Amino acid sequence: MAQTLTSRPPVQFQTHPSRYQHWKLTFDGDVATLTMGVDPQGGERDGYELKLNSYDLGVDVELADAILRLRFEHPEVRCVVITGALDRVFCAGANIVMLRTSSHAFKVNFCKYTNETRLGIEDASARSGLRFLAALNGTASGGGYELALACDEILLVDDRNSAVSFPEVPLLGVLPGTGGLTRIADKRMVRRDRCDVFSTVAEGIKGKRAVEWNLVDGIAPLSRWAESVKERARRLADTQAKKDGPGVELDEIAPEETPTSQGRRFVYRHVECSIDAEARTAELVIAAPATFATNARAARAEGARWWALRAFRELDDAILRLRLNHPEVGLVLLRCKGSSAALRATDALLADSKDWFVREVASFVRRTLKRVDLSAKGFYAVVDEGTCFVGTFLELLLACDRSYVKLADADGAVLGVTAANDGRNPMANGISRLATRFLGTPQSVTAVLAEKDDFDAARADELGLATFAPDAIDWDDELRLAIEERSAFSPDALTGMEANLRFAGPETMETKIFGRLSAWQNWIFQRPNAVGERGALTCYGTPNKAEFDYNRT
Amino acid sequence: MAQTLTSRPPVQFQTHPSRYQHWKLTFDGDVATLTMGVDPQGGERDGYELKLNSYDLGVDVELADAILRLRFEHPEVRCVVITGALDRVFCAGANIVMLRTSSHAFKVNFCKYTNETRLGIEDASARSGLRFLAALNGTASGGGYELALACDEILLVDDRNSAVSFPEVPLLGVLPGTGGLTRIADKRMVRRDRCDVFSTVAEGIKGKRAVEWNLVDGIAPLSRWAESVKERARRLADTQAKKDGPGVELDEIAPEETPTSQGRRFVYRHVECSIDAEARTAELVIAAPATFATNARAARAEGARWWALRAFRELDDAILRLRLNHPEVGLVLLRCKGSSAALRATDALLADSKDWFVREVASFVRRTLKRVDLSAKGFYAVVDEGTCFVGTFLELLLACDRSYVKLADADGAVLGVTAANDGRNPMANGISRLATRFLGTPQSVTAVLAEKDDFDAARADELGLATFAPDAIDWDDELRLAIEERSAFSPDALTGMEANLRFAGPETMETKIFGRLSAWQNWIFQRPNAVGERGALTCYGTPNKAEFDYNRT
Repeated sequence: MAQTLTSRPPVQFQTHPSRYQHWKLTFDGDVATLTMGVDPQGGERDGYELKLNSYDLGVDVELADAILRLRFEHPEVRCVVITGALDRVFCAGANIVMLRTSSHAFKVNFCKYTNETRLGIEDASARSGLRFLAALNGTASGGGYELALACDEILLVDDRNSAVSFPEVPLLGVLPGTGGLTRIADKRMVRRDRCDVFSTVAEGIKGKRAVEWNLVDGIAPLSRWAESVKERARRLADTQAKKDGPGVELDEIAPEETPTSQGRRFVYRHVECSIDAEARTAELVIAAPATFATNARAARAEGARWWALRAFRELDDAILRLRLNHPEVGLVLLRCKGSSAALRATDALLADSKDWFVREVASFVRRTLKRVDLSAKGFYAVVDEGTCFVGTFLELLLACDRSYVKLADADGAVLGVTAANDGRNPMANGISRLATRFLGTPQSVTAVLAEKDDFDAARADELGLATFAPDAIDWDDELRLAIEERSAFSPDALTGMEANLRFAGPETMETKIFGRLSAWQNWIFQRPNAVGERGALTCYGTPNKAEFDYNRT
Repeated sequence: MAQTLTSRPPVQFQTHPSRYQHWKLTFDGDVATLTMGVDPQGGERDGYELKLNSYDLGVDVELADAILRLRFEHPEVRCVVITGALDRVFCAGANIVMLRTSSHAFKVNFCKYTNETRLGIEDASARSGLRFLAALNGTASGGGYELALACDEILLVDDRNSAVSFPEVPLLGVLPGTGGLTRIADKRMVRRDRCDVFSTVAEGIKGKRAVEWNLVDGIAPLSRWAESVKERARRLADTQAKKDGPGVELDEIAPEETPTSQGRRFVYRHVECSIDAEARTAELVIAAPATFATNARAARAEGARWWALRAFRELDDAILRLRLNHPEVGLVLLRCKGSSAALRATDALLADSKDWFVREVASFVRRTLKRVDLSAKGFYAVVDEGTCFVGTFLELLLACDRSYVKLADADGAVLGVTAANDGRNPMANGISRLATRFLGTPQSVTAVLAEKDDFDAARADELGLATFAPDAIDWDDELRLAIEERSAFSPDALTGMEANLRFAGPETMETKIFGRLSAWQNWIFQRPNAVGERGALTCYGTPNKAEFDYNRT
């Protein structure tokens, strides 16, 4: 029954409001409304109907696109209302049949993407002057309520029927894994025993009790629904500063894709990705251009063409394709190219600008770097001839599991530090990649940040930025062996290892979601009690009743 | 091939140095030496040989016993040297054949127990004035090195062969799951890329590089080994304050076990546990006695018979039996009994005493409470006639997932607050159970702590201590339904849910180990790449070569 990941059509991560099938984005001054009206027949693949505003990856790709466009194209918006187009049901969560007929790897990556989208909503609230109101015009179950939990406020219709609920544990034998368990405990800080009760009551909790337990911020009767939503949205919008328009329209970034003798290659404007299917590796190159904006006005004039935005949108797209469409790739070899001048000028602009657009780009870069941290692939930074790891590109090196730095006499790599490395790009753990790398030796962070000029491979090695620094004679063999070695290991063990080693130091709601909640959900997604022939996820909605092995692990 | 948990002989958690098969505990003034010399034929069950100082649960039960006895019976000891009795090998980690032939549930609970034992070493270091020196007289692999990581200092013999290593990922397709990945990153703060390399190099790292990477604190040549160990132990011992003896000998606490019509019952002096196998529940009762010590001198005179120590040792034993020997139990119904006076007097003593023995008992209580938090069973506190949830017993209520409080007119439950509830018993997350429960409403913590006198069920409900508070008419039905309901859910989903909901708020190395590392390890322990017919764990040491599905999840 389970469909393998590789037999799926490749997932596309780019869309446009004109092509949305499931969401409607409307505007009323500084309040935008994002209305979920999922087309039951519009599933990303065949075999399931998206009833009751249940969603699949395609629905979430549109949501992520809408949030991104709100941030870039609509600076006038200060509050986003997320509501539903159906009667009595806001959203029923992830589609069960879709989950049931997906491979384990797809389920895991689907959940990761939807988690990133919801964290993106919280990021827009924290950094983009957008407030989100979940206007639950009907029952919000499972992933539907988890979407609401990502918003700043939740208003629930009080019609004696509509509830918020987590039916996963009681009905499906899985977890509310899109941040749900984490957010009720750590964001809304619902009393622990009430979290336990709520997460086991399939029909959910409604009305005054939902408010009393802090599951929602307010309720409103149907008779006053529209005006209650409007009032709350108005109040939320008014808390946010105005930004000077106009918006910056996001262009299409579809790469040119070609099959190669080894596998596949996709080429964007600033990013290239070549997949060697047999070696199970991808070579990923990101390059800064020769000419670049040096002030906010020039950046605004370039808009979506500004390389800093375009290159990281391309990188983001490439990472998502690698995750969802290329599970065979276990190791990514990353090279950064271009001039130090381009990176230094761009980073200076990204660091200090008061311009909302430039700040949005900086935020986008930060989120893309996090996407790398959270990808279940190994990453080696390859620092050889003609590469440039300065500032934001050095941040990419620091996001990698290892760095191979070639000690060369001429044409060697250029490295350098900018404000991008000094706390402006925190990881999910809330601290910088340098601070994470040198958790035990903060003086090493200071030493790296003291490098005002570009430096070479040898200096990078002295500064602790090279995992290995072979000379020209050993370089080819050492790198080849390191690649072959990692590609031979169990991909599952590597995924677990990377998830544990990448986030030393403090923990946040974000690391809890990806480190703990997702890991438990992945475990459950392997358990016969959920996905076996008589597992709860398998049997739900069928004539069969789930049968459990009741032994506790 | 896999043996099911239930077909195993029941695990016994009580032992005595006179019966140790695998460890030798010797004393030289204030330095104790714990020498690992695992009897290859002494496995806890048949089917594997404990070669090269590899261990199984039986070996770890002895280790846990030794650490506990050092704390209680040997107050003169200030430094514990952990070393090995074999040549060239300190310890090869958990026995592979044992792991391979164990059920998933056993593997998971085995890892949990060994993790608790290692955290117990760190707890003894933090709270008992004991410093631990891992004197690695040979290679420490996997769990062997993880044991060393739990110590304050690690000294490695420099003989050109002996290394520390994590061969799990490269050879076995699993993780160093006994805290290893967490401790290299978060305790020893090894540079992130070096953690990655170290965790993939099967042969490990030795000599100066091991020191440079901070994997060990020092190396010493074979020619100076004995004196180097002695010097370091001396220096560590001298950093700790002396305690006034004599020690308190720990007595046997074997319960009386009887089969019952529903299942099984084991009765200790202060604790009783009745298992209803069909209902999949256990009724657990802990009772404070009518007479009790009211000062340190009296407590010392009672020694191991002092109820506070005895009762919690019994509770600890019962919890461990429930975990390992009774996987069929999914829900524990907990009642506390005895007088408020007993609890108040005991808690007052535990809170303020300068006496090392009383402080050790307080530490033991604290660790037992954590054992409850970390047990993969649901816990309901049942607060009905004749129960007493005061102080340390209220802490047990707060450790439960829910509390059912009966609103009764007469003979109702007695509840009350003592110093035990005010930060003296932090959870693994570092904060109190009250603070965790009321994370979003700290004023509720203040209100509870302001209750100087005993209070009744109705007041408990007002204070937010009752999940549900049915009256006498509804009580039986409501409790019965709540029990039946939880017992019907997927046990895996409940385990994942509880692991996520119990630890709101801050994270620590401890919560990372149990929440993240263990969850990923449990996931991997389900994956065909580890445990399938051609998985790495299955094939290791056999003529078969592992074969992987190389797709990344």
